[in-house]
Order: sequence, then C-alpha cells, then structure tokens
Amino acid sequence: MKPTIKDVAKLANVSISTVSRVMNAPETVVETKKLRVLDAIERLKYKPNALARGLIYKKTNTLGVVIPDIRNPYYADIIRGMEDASKMLGYNLIICNTDRDRARLFSYLNNFYEKQVDGILYTSDPVYPDYYKALQRLQMPVVLVSTHSMEYRLPSVKINDEQAAYDAVKYLIDSGHTSIGMIGFHLSDSIAGLPRYEGFARALREHDLDDSKDNVVFVNGWSYDTPDAAAQLIARFPSVTAVFTSSDELAIGLIAYLHEQGIRVPEQISVMGFDNIRWGNLSIPKLTTVAQPTYEIGFRSVMKLNAIIKEQDDSELREYLPHTIIERASAKILKSFSSP
Amino acid sequence: MKPTIKDVAKLANVSISTVSRVMNAPETVVETKKLRVLDAIERLKYKPNALARGLIYKKTNTLGVVIPDIRNPYYADIIRGMEDASKMLGYNLIICNTDRDRARLFSYLNNFYEKQVDGILYTSDPVYPDYYKALQRLQMPVVLVSTHSMEYRLPSVKINDEQAAYDAVKYLIDSGHTSIGMIGFHLSDSIAGLPRYEGFARALREHDLDDSKDNVVFVNGWSYDTPDAAAQLIARFPSVTAVFTSSDELAIGLIAYLHEQGIRVPEQISVMGFDNIRWGNLSIPKLTTVAQPTYEIGFRSVMKLNAIIKEQDDSELREYLPHTIIERASAKILKSFSSP
Repeated sequence: MKPTIKDVAKLANVSISTVSRVMNAPETVVETKKLRVLDAIERLKYKPNALARGLIYKKTNTLGVVIPDIRNPYYADIIRGMEDASKMLGYNLIICNTDRDRARLFSYLNNFYEKQVDGILYTSDPVYPDYYKALQRLQMPVVLVSTHSMEYRLPSVKINDEQAAYDAVKYLIDSGHTSIGMIGFHLSDSIAGLPRYEGFARALREHDLDDSKDNVVFVNGWSYDTPDAAAQLIARFPSVTAVFTSSDELAIGLIAYLHEQGIRVPEQISVMGFDNIRWGNLSIPKLTTVAQPTYEIGFRSVMKLNAIIKEQDDSELREYLPHTIIERASAKILKSFSSP
Repeated sequence: MKPTIKDVAKLANVSISTVSRVMNAPETVVETKKLRVLDAIERLKYKPNALARGLIYKKTNTLGVVIPDIRNPYYADIIRGMEDASKMLGYNLIICNTDRDRARLFSYLNNFYEKQVDGILYTSDPVYPDYYKALQRLQMPVVLVSTHSMEYRLPSVKINDEQAAYDAVKYLIDSGHTSIGMIGFHLSDSIAGLPRYEGFARALREHDLDDSKDNVVFVNGWSYDTPDAAAQLIARFPSVTAVFTSSDELAIGLIAYLHEQGIRVPEQISVMGFDNIRWGNLSIPKLTTVAQPTYEIGFRSVMKLNAIIKEQDDSELREYLPHTIIERASAKILKSFSSP
C-alpha cells in the first residue's frame, strides 16, 4: 500500500504537522526532527507529489530555457538536443522566448526563480552587464548555449565562430576566388557578428586579399530584409565572385535574390552559408555551408548544467564543439584545391 | 515588509503548523480553520513561493505541451502562439517531444501528472484509444491542437483539412489544370492523411476530373524521402501538369527534384503546397500554398485551455480556424479563373 503522510509521522515519531512543516517551512523545524522526517520519507519510499518534493529536496527537476526566437530553425535542433539529454537525466524544460526583449527576459528569469527551476540554459544572446547581474541575483546554475562571455566566469557551450568563419572563407579562397563579399550581422553582436567578421577578415589577410575586406553588408540579426541586403551587396560590390553569409537564411535569401536578377549560382556567384539548417539541402542549388553541431550543442549544454547542479566535476568553463564544412553545390571551385 | 508564515498564523489565529498543513495537507485541516488561513494569506498578500502556492491552490500555472517533433518548422509558429498567449495569461509551458513514440508520450503524460500541470496541449497526432485512456486517467483539462477527435468529446483547435485541400485543388482546376497529381500522407493518418486526400478527391469529382483521383503517392508522415516520393509520382503519372502536396516540405522537395530533372516549375508542372512555412517564400520559384494560421492555432489553443481550467464558458467543442490560399509563383494559371 502507498505510504501516507501519517505513516511518515508515525515512523519519525513526530506529528503530521511536523512532517508537513518539514516540507513547507523547514526553517521552523528543529534540525534533529527534520532529519528524522527526511529519513522516514526515505525509508518508506514516501512519494509526496512533485511539488511537495520540490520543497523538501529543493529540486524541481525542471530547467528553464530562454531563447531569442523559437521560430528560427537554428534553435529547433538545439532544443531537440536539450530535450533528449533532459529526458535521459529526468528533467523537464520550460522554454521561453525572449524576443530579445529585455523586460520579457527579466520577467522570465523572475518566473524561473518563483518556480524554483534547478538551472537555466541561456541561449544565443550576448550577456550584457545588467543581464549578468540579473542572473547572479537568482543564485542558480547557468549554462550559456551558443553564446559565451569573456568578461564573466560563466560556463558555455558553442562553436568557435571566428575559426568557423575563417574556414568557410578559406574554402572559397582555396577554390580560387579572389573577390569575396560577406553579408554579416552587426559588429555590435559579440557572438554572431564580430567573430564571424574577424574570421572573414583574417582569412583574407592571410591570403593577401585585403582588398575584399570591406565588401561587407551588415544586417541586424533579428529583423533584417534578406533580399534588400543581397541587393545592397551586389549593387555596391558588383565584382564579387563569391559571398560568405553569416547564416543559411541569409544565404538562401541571397540565392533567391540572385535568381530573380538572372544571376546564376554558382556559375556567376558562389554562395557559402553558415549553420546547416535542413532547408539548405532543399535549396536550388543545394547550399554549401558551415555546419554547427546544433543538436550536440543543446545536448552537451544540459549535460554540463546537470554536472554543475550535481556539483560534479566539469572543469572546462568555455567549451567549443567542432564545426564542419558541408560541400554541396552553391559554391564553385575555380581551380583545384591548393594543398594546405 | 514582506509578510511571513508567522504573520499569517497570527492573523488567522492558528499555529504556524496549521498554516503549513493548509498548504501541504489541506485534507488534515478543519474547514473553518482552512478558510481563515486562506483569508489571511489573501489579506496579507502573503506570497509563499510558487511551489507552495501550487499546493494551496492546486494550481501551478504551468501547461504541458506534447508535440511530435519540434524540429518540424510547422510547430515553431504554433509554439510561438502558445507561448505568447501563455505569457499573457501567466502560464509557463513545459514542451515535450514525443517523437511519435508511444512509450515516450506516456512517460511525459505521467510526468505532467507528477508536476501537476494545470492542463495539457496535445498537438497534431490522432488520438488513439489507448492515448485517450491515458489522458482520461490524468483527469486534467486537455485541448487538442492541430488535431481533433470525432470519437471522443475532446476540445480541439485546427483548420478544416478536407476543405483546405479541396480549396487548394480547386485553385489548380480553376487555373485550367485537368491532369492533377498529389503527394500525400497515408490514409491511416486521420488528420493530415485521409481528410486532405478526401478534399483532393472531392474537388476532382465535382469538376468531372475523376480520372486524376488515383494519381497519388502516399508517404509516411514522419519519415519520408521527399525526392523519392517525387520521383515515384513523375514516373507513374508523367502526364500531370499540376501537383498538390500535403506539406510545404513535400512541395519544396518536389520542386528540388523537378529542377534536377530539368523539368521547369511552373511552366511544365505547377506545384501547390500546404502549411505556409517561412521557407516557401524563399524557394525558387516562390511557393503557392494553403496557409494554416499556425500562430493563431497555438494562441487560441491556450486561450481555450485556460477557459476550461477556469471553468469559463467556451462552448465550441471542435473549433476550426480559417485557412487561406497564398498565391505566389509555383502554380501556373493556364486560363483565367472561372467564376465560382
């Protein structure tokens, strides 16, 4: 028969209300009694419901996730990876869209506190000083996902964005392109903006192609008009034979724009994406891109957060997972690859 | 100063442990005392944390969502609509992927019970008899989202799939096509399969085009090879001049396959999608499709579930939201529209 609160009280030799207080207001119960009650709960395998258990063990087995926009397919695989790891470890995810809105983010963080989640997965946006303060105030374990912070000591899981952009542009250079353009995110974006531009610029510099380094159109990462950015790039830098974009969505939008203009991809202009979302495989031509291990980023973030919650060793503070170049049909090889 | 449990006890003229029992084991407290405590909590605006509050009011302000696959972009807008409505109403969402796996679904439902969510949003899959039994056992409010049940009295929000498919195919017929094919989901799928085929068949029948009604290739809704289905259709029914597909992903895959084969869209074959995911606007040519109001379906589902939780009147059991035809460039008009 399922043990009840009365059985616990009897075994612990305390009143029912003491058991109840242990669950609800443990600070009002003498330590020795509290230990007897917890011991009785353990021995009887008494199962109060999850809420009550949250009060006793200070664990809710729930993780809070903040993401900027669930409609962006980039996040779908990340969330899927998070969810699979959570399922394995016995957590549920509460997923919240911030819309990159400060008030909305703060309201959700407050909510995570009220719900007493065991930890927070903070996805993809830079950690501004006031965000950091808000996170600190919660005194909850946090893992940064697809973002990191060099200013603050916060654990994180992402790719090396500078190196990934470098490798993408080097692929174009090795393919024989010498006039290369870029559609990127504003440099004020310390995650998807600046490092990817730096990777672009470094690849050009190391191959004596500095002339291309200003062939860039920057867009706002969360409300851009893809065809408009593409039109600007082509109007301002008509001589480019290859374009590196900071997201597959920008790349697919560029291909659509070029198609409308009667410019052939890759014969006249090669296009290199970033992310490897599933639609790149259905574009015409199929998109050559840099793959982020999105599922693994999500999965690994939850593993890392769990290790922190359980106070296990997880020594690598800022973790970088490997990216890969996916060769499909949107980038043209003008000459055979030079040896590295 | 923030009121404490002691202030509540004092005002209610009971012991601290009685207040605590009201929160944790209300069945052990005499009704009159319980009411005094709840009244004192109310008057003092005493805020126990969310967990404790869940125990008192039997509300956690959390909704459980089961979806088949978060990676499918169709769900992204639905979840976004759910989340916006939830934010407005003060709920959090716990989102769970079922992978269309029965054991995984049951484990999540059990988990929702343990966490005492206030209600469940069951998305997109048919309600099989054992699923219904499992939902019944939970005794929790449920709303079916993008699915419905004719066998069971379960509230639901979706489009009218038969009519939407009918309208899509009628658009092709009105455009002058007389040999029409379809790539659809298996008829055993009572939501996205059978009704869409029925709409296809009814449109043909009403326009004396019954010859086309077998020009169909069926795929498994959750693990299909799009190019393979497209290849089968074209091989078996080479005379079709237009194809209706049961999802935009199928349509975009078909366009990619036709492009590879050197068959021009829409000059040689018109393509009509279903859903209106964001990628349809970036395909080449841009996809003509039937728009589901996905965001509204998500939003409205939460409003409906909230009304049921709050025992407010929400009389329409099975709710159908309007679909619309989005005319873009993938379907060719062979003649001017006939008047309806």
